[in-house]
Amino acid sequence: MSFVLGPNRYGKAETRVVCVRRDTDRHEVRDLNVSTSLRGDFTAAHVEGDQSHVLTTDTQKNTAFAYAKKVGVSSPEAYALALGERLLTAAPAATASRVQVEEYAWERVEVGGAGHDHTFVRRGGEEVRTAVVLRGRDTQPMVVSGCTGLVVMKTTGSQFTGFLREDYTTLQDAEDRVLATSLTARWRHTTTDGLDWDAAHAAVRQTCLAAFATTYSRALQETLWAMGSAVLEAHQHVAEIDFSAPNRHHFVVDLAPFGLDNPGEVFHAADRPYGLIEARVQREAHECTGHFGEL
Amino acid sequence: MSFVLGPNRYGKAETRVVCVRRDTDRHEVRDLNVSTSLRGDFTAAHVEGDQSHVLTTDTQKNTAFAYAKKVGVSSPEAYALALGERLLTAAPAATASRVQVEEYAWERVEVGGAGHDHTFVRRGGEEVRTAVVLRGRDTQPMVVSGCTGLVVMKTTGSQFTGFLREDYTTLQDAEDRVLATSLTARWRHTTTDGLDWDAAHAAVRQTCLAAFATTYSRALQETLWAMGSAVLEAHQHVAEIDFSAPNRHHFVVDLAPFGLDNPGEVFHAADRPYGLIEARVQREAHECTGHFGEL
Amino acid sequence: MSFVLGPNRYGKAETRVVCVRRDTDRHEVRDLNVSTSLRGDFTAAHVEGDQSHVLTTDTQKNTAFAYAKKVGVSSPEAYALALGERLLTAAPAATASRVQVEEYAWERVEVGGAGHDHTFVRRGGEEVRTAVVLRGRDTQPMVVSGCTGLVVMKTTGSQFTGFLREDYTTLQDAEDRVLATSLTARWRHTTTDGLDWDAAHAAVRQTCLAAFATTYSRALQETLWAMGSAVLEAHQHVAEIDFSAPNRHHFVVDLAPFGLDNPGEVFHAADRPYGLIEARVQREAHECTGHFGEL
Amino acid sequence: MSFVLGPNRYGKAETRVVCVRRDTDRHEVRDLNVSTSLRGDFTAAHVEGDQSHVLTTDTQKNTAFAYAKKVGVSSPEAYALALGERLLTAAPAATASRVQVEEYAWERVEVGGAGHDHTFVRRGGEEVRTAVVLRGRDTQPMVVSGCTGLVVMKTTGSQFTGFLREDYTTLQDAEDRVLATSLTARWRHTTTDGLDWDAAHAAVRQTCLAAFATTYSRALQETLWAMGSAVLEAHQHVAEIDFSAPNRHHFVVDLAPFGLDNPGEVFHAADRPYGLIEARVQREAHECTGHFGEL
Repeated sequence: MSFVLGPNRYGKAETRVVCVRRDTDRHEVRDLNVSTSLRGDFTAAHVEGDQSHVLTTDTQKNTAFAYAKKVGVSSPEAYALALGERLLTAAPAATASRVQVEEYAWERVEVGGAGHDHTFVRRGGEEVRTAVVLRGRDTQPMVVSGCTGLVVMKTTGSQFTGFLREDYTTLQDAEDRVLATSLTARWRHTTTDGLDWDAAHAAVRQTCLAAFATTYSRALQETLWAMGSAVLEAHQHVAEIDFSAPNRHHFVVDLAPFGLDNPGEVFHAADRPYGLIEARVQREAHECTGHFGEL
Repeated sequence: MSFVLGPNRYGKAETRVVCVRRDTDRHEVRDLNVSTSLRGDFTAAHVEGDQSHVLTTDTQKNTAFAYAKKVGVSSPEAYALALGERLLTAAPAATASRVQVEEYAWERVEVGGAGHDHTFVRRGGEEVRTAVVLRGRDTQPMVVSGCTGLVVMKTTGSQFTGFLREDYTTLQDAEDRVLATSLTARWRHTTTDGLDWDAAHAAVRQTCLAAFATTYSRALQETLWAMGSAVLEAHQHVAEIDFSAPNRHHFVVDLAPFGLDNPGEVFHAADRPYGLIEARVQREAHECTGHFGEL
Repeated sequence: MSFVLGPNRYGKAETRVVCVRRDTDRHEVRDLNVSTSLRGDFTAAHVEGDQSHVLTTDTQKNTAFAYAKKVGVSSPEAYALALGERLLTAAPAATASRVQVEEYAWERVEVGGAGHDHTFVRRGGEEVRTAVVLRGRDTQPMVVSGCTGLVVMKTTGSQFTGFLREDYTTLQDAEDRVLATSLTARWRHTTTDGLDWDAAHAAVRQTCLAAFATTYSRALQETLWAMGSAVLEAHQHVAEIDFSAPNRHHFVVDLAPFGLDNPGEVFHAADRPYGLIEARVQREAHECTGHFGEL
Repeated sequence: MSFVLGPNRYGKAETRVVCVRRDTDRHEVRDLNVSTSLRGDFTAAHVEGDQSHVLTTDTQKNTAFAYAKKVGVSSPEAYALALGERLLTAAPAATASRVQVEEYAWERVEVGGAGHDHTFVRRGGEEVRTAVVLRGRDTQPMVVSGCTGLVVMKTTGSQFTGFLREDYTTLQDAEDRVLATSLTARWRHTTTDGLDWDAAHAAVRQTCLAAFATTYSRALQETLWAMGSAVLEAHQHVAEIDFSAPNRHHFVVDLAPFGLDNPGEVFHAADRPYGLIEARVQREAHECTGHFGEL
């Protein structure tokens, strides 16, 4: 009997590349976690064990380090564009490369009211900036920027009422609740030319935060829509934006047995289960394949 | 300016349902982590904040618990089929439901040479059995069984040689190496009728293990192909099988500086980076959309 | 044969207490993870199964929530002092209570240049503020403040040379290296009266950061000593300070095979193994028992 | 002002040593995570930055690998005894060494009814075997064996009733409940001579499991006592045993709103908060210092 090789890809995941720019005494740091992979005609490697067209994952790792030096890291996106191009050149059998970069943020330690030249403290920890670049041979590269672990909370300005009720429904309406989530967002760019990637990333992130803060929420779904619409409205270079938002439930603790009132002041932050809301906002309707589908 | 809601889904993730069958003194346990979600026409919830068609994630959680009692858990697959059907019934606006179940295995504690009636020890920990059921309204449900965290290693019978060499290649040929991975596998069934899900799962898992053990490996890619082909060969109810295999690198430690030989006996098990190989084996070529694509 | 019950304690771990102060429209948030435990004469509970003197862990949890409302959370330390006292009162068989609090920091989302009234973003994620209060019946409570996951790095101003060399030594001297760690620090207070806990915590943390930045490091050990001495010098209310510092190794990548120089610019950040340095700095020599020993 | 260096230690944590014995075609595997540290007079390293007496953590790592080859790994305990002795010899300034070993278990893949020669599957994942050896210069080494992540559950044979009630108590008596925990146990040996460490470990573990199964439990405390007493009774080489047992709460789900009875059949497995019970059982009363205290 004979079978067929379906979709496949391979690469090196989580190469931890840290770059220090030390041209002057005031050092700059970029701290990356880089994952690369290739797709293409690798049937021989699978079916016959023939590795002659395989650019090894070890070589992909070496290239990730070498390109950090050779082209530098002006931004995760620019670095990923260059690295992805190199991988395609190096592996003729590949039809597409994928470079995913996570960036961890550092800020200068304050000493005597000023940021120190070469000492840094990790800002955030859960929040990570992300970038994915998909490159084919004859197409425009697709660049998707994003963040993950952006934990936000609003202590009022959120309700959840009027939902469908049926046999298994016990939830009560909540007129005023805490809304919290650990946001993952990814936005696809219409172009890759001439963008200041760092500035653009900060601006989109800030638009999301401001929309989260200032929109009254009748559901997490509505909040995602508000954030997505605000981003598309304000940032022409964004084609579409995708959210994944686990609802970090904060339950009001019943203190009545102890003779205490609790008008939305003391909450239990629960772990599991949690609501999980996922949505995308686009400029116009189109199929997802070819866009986020391959990510 | 007006925008469009793209793909979206929502549900309750990670409801930890534990079931004890206690009809007799010899109890049976099924320990599940259940995630459900719905897709469909939920534009009003996003754009207008109208929740009247939303089956809340809290209700989905209640239903997961109630169905564990009502229909029981004869297998993760059977339970997920029933639960997914109920969710579609309860939410008229939904066009599809998705139920994902992770199962943690327990075995009886041995006392005096026999398994104890009501005391269990968790078997495995990293290895988890998985099942995903996707249901639409007018289509056959799609059932994908699988496992994740199946950690396997072979201490010989594996090489990696003859690969592409270019400017950034430093890796040397390895004629005899340790091959280890933490395997994730998912297999889609051609039918959902009449299958003994527990027996079928054990059989596919064993086919994978045996193929891993007995196939000489010239690359992890070839090993995945061998496992996939063996499964399709032996199990007619499997339409296709998908693997994700992080290469858990074991590097031979250089003990020469200490006057010690090390002919493949002492290894350093590395964390990151790691090779990541993903491949699918199918009965015949077809597009992935409509199959694993929506998972 | 008869045996003896040795040291024991019990309690409720990781109660996730979130408090919102909403007296005005400008809300304040304190987000805590609270673990309590009791020691004392609980032999009957162990040996005879007699629970009549056991303040259940469920009650401890209830008390943690109720006290968040009743006395509020002006600081983790003040809250822990009150909660620990209550637990001793409620459990006559207990001789000592222990309350451990982890606090997660949130900062206001900036909207239009000002911090929003009721919307917050999680600051840090890895960094957690800690407080432990040990209370006996006839002794001063012991208060230990601290932090964990404070990740710092300096890109120069650090060497490691002149170390002991013997048969198994292969490490080369490093004249200029990256020094990075995820710092855990705990400092014991000489007094619990009249301290502004929040201000004191910020000040000690800043002293550590400044000492890390401005001290030339000939080993991580020396850096810990420098931080500890600086804290004792500047903060009279600190009796002693304890550090645990995993060395987050940053290895210079060898780019010579690719014709590239790498003068301390591109590093591989390694996971495991890692050096782990632990040290305490005290005002004068004394036994550890009775101080950190019971933590 | 001058301060004093308090307790301190340093070493290399989490060296991942994997050993393959390949004398015959039937390979044997030992998979270890090794952490070593030294205590002693290292004041100069801290206060003056003088590293001349410091056996570097890198050398400790090298020694861990070299000793895996040189003396082999007949058991974690035997390996740790040898490695700890070597570290003391290599570092004259050290007064004590500590070697901690975690061992991950592998079992042979079954092929055609027999265990395969060189292919293994990881058994367990959460459960880890542990060994700690503390060595001073003129004292007997202290050997503590143990396990962590041993997850056990009994579905009946457990109650929790008759506990102390006061103002903040809301918990109801439970006459028949699920009792589950992820057990950490550590037992100190009276001697290090002539013991078959592997067999002894398996025997103590089995005694714990059997006691857990067959003892009716009126509290987790009583269960720990029962396990500890059984171990001391059956194993003369064990001086004392220490347990840490997080209560993995299984809450009966209220299905009454859905017209369903739930007589202890469907449970919600909760994450946090959790009861945490810690106790030690000894042959006779003695101070903890000098025993587990330094671990």
